[in-house]
Amino acid sequence: MSQRPSPPRGMRDLLPAEVALRRTLLNRILDVYGRFGFEQIETPLVEEIERLSNSDGGENTTILFKILRRGLTEWPTSEGESVDLGLRYDLTVPLARFFATNSNQLLLPFKSIQTGPVFRAERPQKGRYRQFTQCDIDILGEASLGAEVELVTATSEALRACEVGEFTIRLNHRRILESMVTAVGYEPSQAAAVLIVLDKFDKIGAAGVHEQLLAFGNSSAATALRALLERIESGDAVDPGRDLPAGTDLDALEEIQRIGNAVATAAGVKTELDFTLVRGMGYYTGAIFEIQHDEFKGSIGGGGRYDRMIGKLSGVDTPAVGFSIGFERLVHILESRAIEATTSDRIAFLYPQGTDLAVVARVAAALRAEGVVVRTDLAAKNRKAQLSRLTDAGFTHWVELRDGNPTAAQPLQKDSQ
Amino acid sequence: MSQRPSPPRGMRDLLPAEVALRRTLLNRILDVYGRFGFEQIETPLVEEIERLSNSDGGENTTILFKILRRGLTEWPTSEGESVDLGLRYDLTVPLARFFATNSNQLLLPFKSIQTGPVFRAERPQKGRYRQFTQCDIDILGEASLGAEVELVTATSEALRACEVGEFTIRLNHRRILESMVTAVGYEPSQAAAVLIVLDKFDKIGAAGVHEQLLAFGNSSAATALRALLERIESGDAVDPGRDLPAGTDLDALEEIQRIGNAVATAAGVKTELDFTLVRGMGYYTGAIFEIQHDEFKGSIGGGGRYDRMIGKLSGVDTPAVGFSIGFERLVHILESRAIEATTSDRIAFLYPQGTDLAVVARVAAALRAEGVVVRTDLAAKNRKAQLSRLTDAGFTHWVELRDGNPTAAQPLQKDSQ
Repeated sequence: MSQRPSPPRGMRDLLPAEVALRRTLLNRILDVYGRFGFEQIETPLVEEIERLSNSDGGENTTILFKILRRGLTEWPTSEGESVDLGLRYDLTVPLARFFATNSNQLLLPFKSIQTGPVFRAERPQKGRYRQFTQCDIDILGEASLGAEVELVTATSEALRACEVGEFTIRLNHRRILESMVTAVGYEPSQAAAVLIVLDKFDKIGAAGVHEQLLAFGNSSAATALRALLERIESGDAVDPGRDLPAGTDLDALEEIQRIGNAVATAAGVKTELDFTLVRGMGYYTGAIFEIQHDEFKGSIGGGGRYDRMIGKLSGVDTPAVGFSIGFERLVHILESRAIEATTSDRIAFLYPQGTDLAVVARVAAALRAEGVVVRTDLAAKNRKAQLSRLTDAGFTHWVELRDGNPTAAQPLQKDSQ
Repeated sequence: MSQRPSPPRGMRDLLPAEVALRRTLLNRILDVYGRFGFEQIETPLVEEIERLSNSDGGENTTILFKILRRGLTEWPTSEGESVDLGLRYDLTVPLARFFATNSNQLLLPFKSIQTGPVFRAERPQKGRYRQFTQCDIDILGEASLGAEVELVTATSEALRACEVGEFTIRLNHRRILESMVTAVGYEPSQAAAVLIVLDKFDKIGAAGVHEQLLAFGNSSAATALRALLERIESGDAVDPGRDLPAGTDLDALEEIQRIGNAVATAAGVKTELDFTLVRGMGYYTGAIFEIQHDEFKGSIGGGGRYDRMIGKLSGVDTPAVGFSIGFERLVHILESRAIEATTSDRIAFLYPQGTDLAVVARVAAALRAEGVVVRTDLAAKNRKAQLSRLTDAGFTHWVELRDGNPTAAQPLQKDSQ
């Protein structure tokens, strides 16, 4: 055989066992979200290039897949003339555009489910792909904290339905972060840049953050932040009243305490305030959440309140909160646990060449009527090898025809092969 | 409000009711295919541009969405240098590439399910979109007719599971078409072009086909074909032995008769031989099938045997048959029937501002534990208008809190609004 072709660079095929696990997980998640009254929508996989490029997506807007304009009669002299569309890099930009397009046809507040592929032309690396699946819920048009509580509760239930194991919801608030930074002495105009450094805390530690902060001058501010980070690093409990700098926004603190208490009480979810949680996205305006899996390092989901993005596009102020499950991460965790996807019997029905095909179809249909999976195959000359391949592929029984009727199902045993 | 933005030209958003119907239909189809032992795979939405451009897709290869190469440092002087990928226009080219990539990890014959979006930059027109969903099954590596029978049976069962109504499977064979054309007197080298004309029979009729065939010369051949087409047009039964030109491939005829008989006998599906069925695709080598809905004009699916395409790519001859459900058409038919998607109760739980959010979450969870959908909403000042909106959105009951406990569910009635 000539050399096997590959999928495009940084992308991958999904084999049957992988798709089966994904479908199981996605159906469980969608069922839970549906029971909360969230409604699924779909948007095109492409959006106008200006909308993507001018969005709040930070560095994601620099790694777009761009689509050539159709019907070009002459080769253009610049990219600007030649490109009109791009592949979406997340589901939030399309959601904002969808809401602006269709809000008059939606029940408000709109409780949205979206899932599907997104695309980022990142440098390929282990476990990261250029096409991957996201799974988001958002509530648009609700300013009160009920929205946050519902998103966190629904997402927690969805993860439980996936039997992912124990996890903790970490909570913070954009106004806590901003007020903390100015309370220790930075200018409001420096806040965004300081927070980008703080976002690296879990990678570079208190000392690393301190070192990078010195570039902003104001060493007393850097020292004050370092003291807080070292307390967190030590594992000692942070007492907000005592340990947060005077001037930290206490209303925002109360908000995340209320969210955390409601979720912990009602849904039995572990929650934790984490005053270093930033989550990169500059568009957050209120509560920020992240799901930390207790065994696997790193986050398996996150979100927050973003009250300004929708209005920018639609011209109508629209409060919004979103929560995204890290679907690829979830699949990875559950793959490593070898979840048993097969529940029903899987029967291989082997028939000899020359059998009346109406008989084959009728017998198979009769077996399927008992609720089992039935695959029909021409009987191979090497019966033993054929049964071994079927066993490896997850089939549990096989039958053949005797006098035009199927034999009793005979078990296929992995060990005996 | 500023003017509402639109999805990209020729594309569309799917609203919640549309997505719900699609998900229901797709799950029913996938469940049936799964019971036949077909296995779902996924391939990336993009493939290398050469693979798409050089494929057997006919005019589809001229309406590709092309993707700009990443990391261009200078603006290229031609399209060839600037484009490396394209959006897939069907699921067959990716399947062929997938099989060449992964065949050593698959149970052979490989029984594949694929569903997902495909893209064609056609001129936008009513009911046709530039992104749409396909849903295919294929059997790769099986040369015998059992494969054809299984595809037709499985697809028929899937359509029944969707409650689409009555349909007929039309059958033909590539070798019948080719032999018929040469039997009346055309050169083998003219066959492909003559068949492209014949493919228009249902639009332009026997006289129209005859007129276009005169361009090929050989008026006696054109007259002979016209006689057959007029017989078909008249609605009289075609007796292959009497009406097909002497020299028509009788082995091929027997093949489709066997397929038709097996499917009709075993699965109770109506079948019909149609010697004018061409289905455009030049890559078919054997049986060709199309599903004709008895009420709605036009096809709701089709397929055939294509024994040469996979080998061209993989270097290993691999017989193949495929059947594609016209998913968008199916959705359209079932939308017009107003299928009742909602089966369980849908309850709106209205709580006043200031309610303890832990109580809201706990009460909602208790209601959901009874298996119903529960949406929580802040109670609006105008209760009547709020209930009316919820009713329109498909909610069947509402509850509120009284002394911290939910009231009995009160029905929402469409008529009373």
